[in-house]
Amino acid sequence: MYALDLIGTFVFAVSGGIRAVRHDLDALGIVVLAVATGVGGGLIRDMLLGATPPGAFRDELYLIACLIAAGAVFIAADRINPEWHTMRIADAIGLGVFAAAGAEKASQFGLGPIGIVMMAAVTATGGGVVRDVLVREVPAVISRDFYATATIIGGVVFVLLQPYNLPEPVLLGLVIAVCTGLRAFALWRSIKLPRTLRAP
Amino acid sequence: MYALDLIGTFVFAVSGGIRAVRHDLDALGIVVLAVATGVGGGLIRDMLLGATPPGAFRDELYLIACLIAAGAVFIAADRINPEWHTMRIADAIGLGVFAAAGAEKASQFGLGPIGIVMMAAVTATGGGVVRDVLVREVPAVISRDFYATATIIGGVVFVLLQPYNLPEPVLLGLVIAVCTGLRAFALWRSIKLPRTLRAP
Amino acid sequence: MYALDLIGTFVFAVSGGIRAVRHDLDALGIVVLAVATGVGGGLIRDMLLGATPPGAFRDELYLIACLIAAGAVFIAADRINPEWHTMRIADAIGLGVFAAAGAEKASQFGLGPIGIVMMAAVTATGGGVVRDVLVREVPAVISRDFYATATIIGGVVFVLLQPYNLPEPVLLGLVIAVCTGLRAFALWRSIKLPRTLRAP
Repeated sequence: MYALDLIGTFVFAVSGGIRAVRHDLDALGIVVLAVATGVGGGLIRDMLLGATPPGAFRDELYLIACLIAAGAVFIAADRINPEWHTMRIADAIGLGVFAAAGAEKASQFGLGPIGIVMMAAVTATGGGVVRDVLVREVPAVISRDFYATATIIGGVVFVLLQPYNLPEPVLLGLVIAVCTGLRAFALWRSIKLPRTLRAP
Repeated sequence: MYALDLIGTFVFAVSGGIRAVRHDLDALGIVVLAVATGVGGGLIRDMLLGATPPGAFRDELYLIACLIAAGAVFIAADRINPEWHTMRIADAIGLGVFAAAGAEKASQFGLGPIGIVMMAAVTATGGGVVRDVLVREVPAVISRDFYATATIIGGVVFVLLQPYNLPEPVLLGLVIAVCTGLRAFALWRSIKLPRTLRAP
Repeated sequence: MYALDLIGTFVFAVSGGIRAVRHDLDALGIVVLAVATGVGGGLIRDMLLGATPPGAFRDELYLIACLIAAGAVFIAADRINPEWHTMRIADAIGLGVFAAAGAEKASQFGLGPIGIVMMAAVTATGGGVVRDVLVREVPAVISRDFYATATIIGGVVFVLLQPYNLPEPVLLGLVIAVCTGLRAFALWRSIKLPRTLRAP
């Protein structure tokens, strides 16, 4: 779980760094967006839960993963393509891992079912929201089809399975499988959510 | 007070959902903007005060009110008009209730007079700021005449009346009356604030 | 240190107020941007560290400094020019003082070296990020050359000198000197950071 969490942070940080390059920002912009995207979701979650200082500050490996990602983007921006199949799969895995970690931490802090689902979504998508707001794009969470929805369904799975007292690795594994699976399936099939039942 | 607080949350959430529809977002976007607008101000206030986990997570009725609002917008977006007289009045009431709740909570956490006024404004307008930043509009709080100003005056009334040890319902009722009344009056008369004394 | 901190808050608040005037906002917009810019960085730092209620609420002189700055901008917007030499120097001093204060507080809360550097940067640049997001400009922190970088180097100096147990005024003074000096030097010489090694 810990290794997956670090990998998720790294992949998210790479996506943030790439965004900085696309917006023609300098080396510092790459670092800022890499860190914000990599640990932003967890920071917002921990501020909301009152779990301070946040996990990303207590274990600096997360920040180091972001800095390595920023360095990789700085050195080899021309060779990294976020549309790559591997990058997309890693991103989907990161999404699932972050959703599972967010749901579990929310549950430890005694939140109710809706709060748990919301924290799963915030942890997995919050970093991307910060990144998109900083570069002034409409956040993917509200515009990109079936991205945040996969994390919400992952959170719902966590809430539904919680009463059965499954061993923790099994519970989290199932959440990751559902969330990552849905995201990968949506990428493959280009699933879209409906807008409104009757548009105004 | 509790019922008013829930009604305020619901109305704010509807305004967030409507904004999502206007920006042509999908069902998830409606939910995200409804939740962010409905409970965002209280979440920011509680993070600033260190009142974690925030009230909106400890009593899930607030989140449920947001989800019902999102559902209503999703089903009947073509029939809801935020320019309606009823919607505007409900919004003005929500503004007053949130300002009073923010001032009271800040006072319980031992903040000084300016801090109390600021928390009244943050609670009442913070959700709208998050909503506007997410859809990339200039936040109403800094551009819309006499919206945040009404909450600030409500906070000032709270601070001025505090030393008289009024019963809590009377104190909060007066704050709501002043803030909501000012907002309604401003809507009716289109009051504007001055820009600078001498424009540069 | 305390006086410098207040001066930094005041200068940052003036820069926020000026931005409001440029965007043609009203008196309330001036107050909001002055407060957000003046104390925003410290608020974000304190929320991340769990140092709640934040310092700016416990000692209201900081908020008063912001309100005086807003009043000054409101009265004399046509006479204040943020390009002035004095304003720029004061801004560079504020940057250094905030970076030093952020690094010290992070160290008191037990953060590791990367966390300390990050908190130095967040404290010094966070207010400007909030200001820029509210008026929908690309945040200076990721677009303006050598602004945040100076705070990061200031944070690194703090981390490197920490083991030597220097008296606190000496340690903080050195951090301020390096950060402010670098910023002033960058202004004078128009230093820029590289973008990527090989642009894509």
